[in-house]
Amino acid sequence: MKVVVKEITLSTQSRFQLIDITSEVESIVENSGVKNGIALVFAPHATAAIIANEHESGLINDIIDKVKEFTEPGSSKWRHNIIDDNAHAHIGSALFGAERVFPVVNGKLIRGTWQNIFLLEMDGPRSRRRVYVVVMGE
Amino acid sequence: MKVVVKEITLSTQSRFQLIDITSEVESIVENSGVKNGIALVFAPHATAAIIANEHESGLINDIIDKVKEFTEPGSSKWRHNIIDDNAHAHIGSALFGAERVFPVVNGKLIRGTWQNIFLLEMDGPRSRRRVYVVVMGE
Amino acid sequence: MKVVVKEITLSTQSRFQLIDITSEVESIVENSGVKNGIALVFAPHATAAIIANEHESGLINDIIDKVKEFTEPGSSKWRHNIIDDNAHAHIGSALFGAERVFPVVNGKLIRGTWQNIFLLEMDGPRSRRRVYVVVMGE
Repeated sequence: MKVVVKEITLSTQSRFQLIDITSEVESIVENSGVKNGIALVFAPHATAAIIANEHESGLINDIIDKVKEFTEPGSSKWRHNIIDDNAHAHIGSALFGAERVFPVVNGKLIRGTWQNIFLLEMDGPRSRRRVYVVVMGE
Repeated sequence: MKVVVKEITLSTQSRFQLIDITSEVESIVENSGVKNGIALVFAPHATAAIIANEHESGLINDIIDKVKEFTEPGSSKWRHNIIDDNAHAHIGSALFGAERVFPVVNGKLIRGTWQNIFLLEMDGPRSRRRVYVVVMGE
Repeated sequence: MKVVVKEITLSTQSRFQLIDITSEVESIVENSGVKNGIALVFAPHATAAIIANEHESGLINDIIDKVKEFTEPGSSKWRHNIIDDNAHAHIGSALFGAERVFPVVNGKLIRGTWQNIFLLEMDGPRSRRRVYVVVMGE
């Protein structure tokens, strides 16, 4: 069995942003030496998430609009905003999840045609966001 | 270590539908030869999701109602609908997730009494939806 | 390869509650003998979820408020409430997920500074909730 752990680092430029990390993740999987198994894509952050979907600019803005609508940034109803004005980002990260898991088959990451992998920033801009990729299998 | 990868294919009949794939997934786990480990259930689709919950007809319709309410099919606010009238399905898949992961113990999939496994179709009908099952362990 | 499966059992005191299980999960990972790999934290329940986020009392209440707002406990629109008055909890568990997966690196669970691990109770109080932890790797 092989376990390969790599880290992707990136910066974000806006409060809300989707950053496409598909090619970085695919390259880690292809260089891992793992033929069949899984790849875990995990953000060690409580105000960001990992999602998989289509890289189309209209849709990217639609997803961000829905996240804003769901999490209500700046709302006075969030108690956490008294401490730090980012309750919305914590709520989004908690409920949508900070990780996604993909199959690895014949040395390649399995994903649908329209399933690109993104870091969903909800509390940017940040100079350093990290994403762990764990590739595990035979 | 063993890694077994299998694919389930199915068709969907409605725009929104929950298709129970529990017995197919359990059978793959039981035939995998893996005693202890995990099972990844993954849909390589950007307009469907995988969820786990009770197979009760009222609840199935409740879940679909909530998904519709959350994703707002046909809304003119979705930019992606100019390209393809399915922004809602992309948003649902991105935020709720296209995969679930289960423990495997003593050769069996671990799930709660009321945790059946479903493909959540949000952009059907489709003649061919696919679900990967990766069983990995010792 | 090593696979270690352990079970955490706990009770809940309220209908909605976040119970921090970080130290139990970390201790299982540290005692597993797995150096690098993954840890799956899975609730075999259809009316609870597993989430990761900050342990701050204001935020904990914010998350519970958002879950209530999203799932609408007691709503007469939920068909499942005719059978059992907990459709909201099933909907929350189905859509937010009953599991989270973390990297394990150098014998330790990887999580962000503000990523504690919680069982999200949505249909308590319950005398016995269970959480499986599967640690797998080399």
